[in-house]
Amino acid sequence: MERLDEDASVISASKVTGTDVYNTEGQHLGEIHDLMLDKRTGKIAYAVMSFGGFLGIGERYHPLPWATLKYDTRQGGYVVGLTKQQLEGAPRFGRDENPAWGDRTFEQRIHDYYRAPPYWAAS
Amino acid sequence: MERLDEDASVISASKVTGTDVYNTEGQHLGEIHDLMLDKRTGKIAYAVMSFGGFLGIGERYHPLPWATLKYDTRQGGYVVGLTKQQLEGAPRFGRDENPAWGDRTFEQRIHDYYRAPPYWAAS
Repeated sequence: MERLDEDASVISASKVTGTDVYNTEGQHLGEIHDLMLDKRTGKIAYAVMSFGGFLGIGERYHPLPWATLKYDTRQGGYVVGLTKQQLEGAPRFGRDENPAWGDRTFEQRIHDYYRAPPYWAAS
Repeated sequence: MERLDEDASVISASKVTGTDVYNTEGQHLGEIHDLMLDKRTGKIAYAVMSFGGFLGIGERYHPLPWATLKYDTRQGGYVVGLTKQQLEGAPRFGRDENPAWGDRTFEQRIHDYYRAPPYWAAS
């Protein structure tokens, strides 16, 4: 996995995708599967982290508010302040599920869980 | 090419990538190659449009401010208000060039060209 340039203020979506995600204990949680974008404002709404499964089967996805991810040069991946137990209860969806992106009730639950300001709030 | 859901307020970066770009005359200009993101604010800085070349050789890239792209359901692609002649003079880079992302002089030139407010301005 190519390391991200930590000093760069601007990074490409294709390089963020595939980057590993760890918790603060250094445990590997998953990797960035995709980014969800708010079309109107052009802001990243969520980084979708994938974990578990084999060759995509049984894989589950966690939408993480962008602000919860900090890049760590030492590990060469993103770090989120989340134990594996906390992750178990986090909002997630399966491979064949179609999350209600743009639905404020669904999305508010994600932001409440991570105590992160919603992407539709003024920055 | 899968069509984007025009009604969705939130779309995935992986679906935006590969989407065709046309001008208002309906001429095909290129396709979305990647998205450049402002790490600090989580905003899309540019959509990078690729055009020309064959199997990536000779391909050129145009950074387009996100706000210049409008999705058109009829064509199933993005539309920018730009003639092919205007595109000829637009800021661009080659496959092996490393654009100065985050450099305000380089970036201001892009925003000036498209008369689009820079991504670092308050939204």
